[in-house]
This record gives sequence, structure tokens and C-alpha cells, in this order.
Amino acid sequence: MTGRVALIGAGPGDPGLLTRAAIVRLRRADLVLYDALIDEGILKYARHAQRFFVGKRAGRHAVTQQAIHTLMIRAARRGRNVVRLKGGDPFVFGRGGEEVLALQRAGVQYEVIPGVSSALAAPAAAGIPVTHRGVASAFLVVSGHDDDGFTSAVSQVVPNGVTIVVLMGLGRSSAIAEALIGRGWSRDTPAAVIVDATKPEQQVWRGTLDELGSDTIDIDATGPGTIVIGEVVAIGARTADEITAEEKTMAAKV
Amino acid sequence: MTGRVALIGAGPGDPGLLTRAAIVRLRRADLVLYDALIDEGILKYARHAQRFFVGKRAGRHAVTQQAIHTLMIRAARRGRNVVRLKGGDPFVFGRGGEEVLALQRAGVQYEVIPGVSSALAAPAAAGIPVTHRGVASAFLVVSGHDDDGFTSAVSQVVPNGVTIVVLMGLGRSSAIAEALIGRGWSRDTPAAVIVDATKPEQQVWRGTLDELGSDTIDIDATGPGTIVIGEVVAIGARTADEITAEEKTMAAKV
Repeated sequence: MTGRVALIGAGPGDPGLLTRAAIVRLRRADLVLYDALIDEGILKYARHAQRFFVGKRAGRHAVTQQAIHTLMIRAARRGRNVVRLKGGDPFVFGRGGEEVLALQRAGVQYEVIPGVSSALAAPAAAGIPVTHRGVASAFLVVSGHDDDGFTSAVSQVVPNGVTIVVLMGLGRSSAIAEALIGRGWSRDTPAAVIVDATKPEQQVWRGTLDELGSDTIDIDATGPGTIVIGEVVAIGARTADEITAEEKTMAAKV
Repeated sequence: MTGRVALIGAGPGDPGLLTRAAIVRLRRADLVLYDALIDEGILKYARHAQRFFVGKRAGRHAVTQQAIHTLMIRAARRGRNVVRLKGGDPFVFGRGGEEVLALQRAGVQYEVIPGVSSALAAPAAAGIPVTHRGVASAFLVVSGHDDDGFTSAVSQVVPNGVTIVVLMGLGRSSAIAEALIGRGWSRDTPAAVIVDATKPEQQVWRGTLDELGSDTIDIDATGPGTIVIGEVVAIGARTADEITAEEKTMAAKV
């Protein structure tokens, strides 16, 4: 009787962005350990499973990381199919690496099913390509969760050079903008905030880095948020009104 | 009669990593314009559609970017459901931004369905978390396709600071390693190359930046490849043999 653990990325929010591989594992799961931000429409696939919420609530860990490891390992040793379900992709700021190491140490079989990361899907949902010819040839993904980590990461990039995508930084958006401006980023750099990306309640705010720092951005920030900073944000902001006459003529010829 | 275009990310290779939303659009598609590297197992969902290969073959564009725009716009104007199918995520080095702008200019309805990007899935498939507590708090995604773009992008980051993920750089892996070493990256930095990630024929090479530059890496590189450079590569390389006695004792107590 050999159980195993599947570390699965549940994607950015929309249940339609779950992968087929994730659905297959959820359907045969005996136990699902899920984080905050997992949609009920995703959990419904695990109809035969016990489901435990092990995420954060009101800023506190409901269950410690060590306890999550213990739950996974014990259940797998009892022959159960365990799904560890994480928002986005399990290896992007998801502590997936730590969970894999714990499973390796315990000799438990596991597999990792990548998911659609909010780092890409949230900008996409707002029409923002993270790279664009002649505008940005690279993007940096960083966690905004803690001040030291963010400051340390952005100190590794030259100001105004690449697109920056900040996950888990919504509660600190003002400090994040100030930190970048303090490091030499232009106050006029286009910035966007996407909350509840890919869900019906999605909200998008657009402005500049300066405005992001002013703490008066007009968005109701209870859901998860992604911040995008860089010239690519302005590409997404181009509307039909901004299309040039020459471009319209070209399009009409098609 | 109003047609529309769905720009869809097909994921890194494994058809199981296609999203539900992508499958729904493929099933009702009248026309699919697909790139190289799209698996036959993915195209089979589009059973009612005409399928056109518009990708690169032997380093040449089979169809120009402008012609792709024209095909999409004309078909949508004739009321057809068009799927523009791209490997990975459509907005990561996929020229998805250009295609969206062309559709906007033409007044054609469109939607973007994000996909699982190889930038994350390829490292994950090799067991490498792109971020890990205390090791890397950010990662830079860059195209290795052209020398100028790569050099320009990596000149924006401080050496040895963040994880670097290089897409489309397999044919230039030696030049990429040399460029990083030339900019001050340590020759001992762990590096990995993942070819045909997530597919049965997946191959993984592990070594150092120095070895990556030596052009003697032992990998058969006909499929698409992802290069990962940074200390996180060593986490993925930890095997059962490398687990410490203390860790084993802890795991045994679970």
C-alpha cells in the first residue's frame, strides 16, 4: 500500500485555468491540503477526498509548515493519495521547494504538477504582456511579502531596466513604490495593480510608480493582488482611441 | 456573424498541462493557427477545425508575423472562431502583445488564455524551485534567442543575485554562459539545462556555469530547451544520499 503526494498548482483563480493533470489528481485524491485563495470550483473536483485548509487566515498561519509536512508524510505512508494544492504555481514563492525536500527526506513518492502562475496570468488578464519587442526583453518576479526580501531582490536590478512583477505585495504597495523610487526608478514608470485576476470580480488599477506610492490607489484590495511595473504596462493601456491613423489604414487593408 | 480570436498558451509540452479553458476553445474552434512545438495530443482537441502551422521551421519563419495577423483578422471577420495556439504562455516572448495590438487595431474581438510557461514548468520538472527561502528571492526570465537582447537584459542585473531562467537559448548556451561569466558571475554557479521539459523524452543536464560555457554538455538538443542558472539548481540536485543524518532522524519521527 503505497501512497503518494502530488504538489499541484491551482492557477491564478479562475477554475478554467486548472490543468487537466491537476483535475486527474484531484479526482482520485483521498486527502487535499489546500491554501487560501483556492476557489470552491476547484475543490469540487476532489469529491471523494477529505479536505483540510492549511493556509493563512488573517495574516496568521492556520497550520505550521512543519505540520503540513507531517500531515502529507503520514497520510502517504498510510497509502493515501495526497494532493497539496497551492495557488498559482507550487514552486513560485509557494514553499514548494521546502515541501519537496521534506518528502525526499521521508522517502515519500511525490510529483510536482506546475500551474499557471499569477506572475504571468495576472498581467495577461489585464492585457499586459510582460515582455514586448523593443520595450522589455526580460522580467523579474519578486515577492513583496517582506520588506527585506523585496529590497534585497530589487537591489539586484538596475533601475528602469526590466519589467518587475510583484506577487503578494498588495498590502505594501506604497512601500514597494517608494523603495523603487528610492533606488532610482523613474516616478513616471507605468504601473498596474491587478486584484482577483482572472476571476469575475477582477479589478485593474493603472497609474504611475509615483501614484502607486501615494497610497490612494482606487482599488478594493481584499483579494490577492499582483503589481506590474514597467513600460509594458502602457502597451496594455493602449485603447482603440490611441491607435494611429496609419495603423487604422493598415488594418483596413487586411 | 461575429467571429473572435482566442490567443491560447498550450503549456510546456505535456498535453496534461493544457488548461480546461484552452480545451473548451479548441473544441469549438473553426481555425487553429499553431506554432512549432505544439504536441499532436493538444491539436486533437480541435477536431472540427482547419489547422495551419505558422511557426518556425529550420530557423525560418514559415509565415510572417504580418501574415499571421491577416489570417486571424480575416477569419474572425468571416465569423469564424479562431484559436491562435502558442507554446507555453502567449505573453512570454511569444509576440502575443503584437498580435493583440493587431486585433485591437482591426476591431476584432479577442481573449487571452494564459498557459503554463516553460519558464516555471521546465525547472519544476527537473525538481528546481525558481525561488527558495534563503537561497533566491526573485527570478529573472529572459530570452536567449538573440545576443543583443540577452546581453542587454542581463546587464540589468547584478551578478550572482537572482535566479536566471533563459528561454530559447539552447543553441547559444555556450555564449550565454560566457556572457554571464564576463559580467562577473561565478564560474561555479550551478546551472541546469532541461530539454523537452514535461514530455516523456525529457532530458536534464546539471553542471556549473563554467561547464555550460565549455560547449561539451552531454545532452541531445533537438527539442526546446530551458536554461536555469543560480544556487536554486543545487536544491533540485540534492538526492537522498545528501540528506543529513539529523534530517533523517527528524523525518523518522514524523
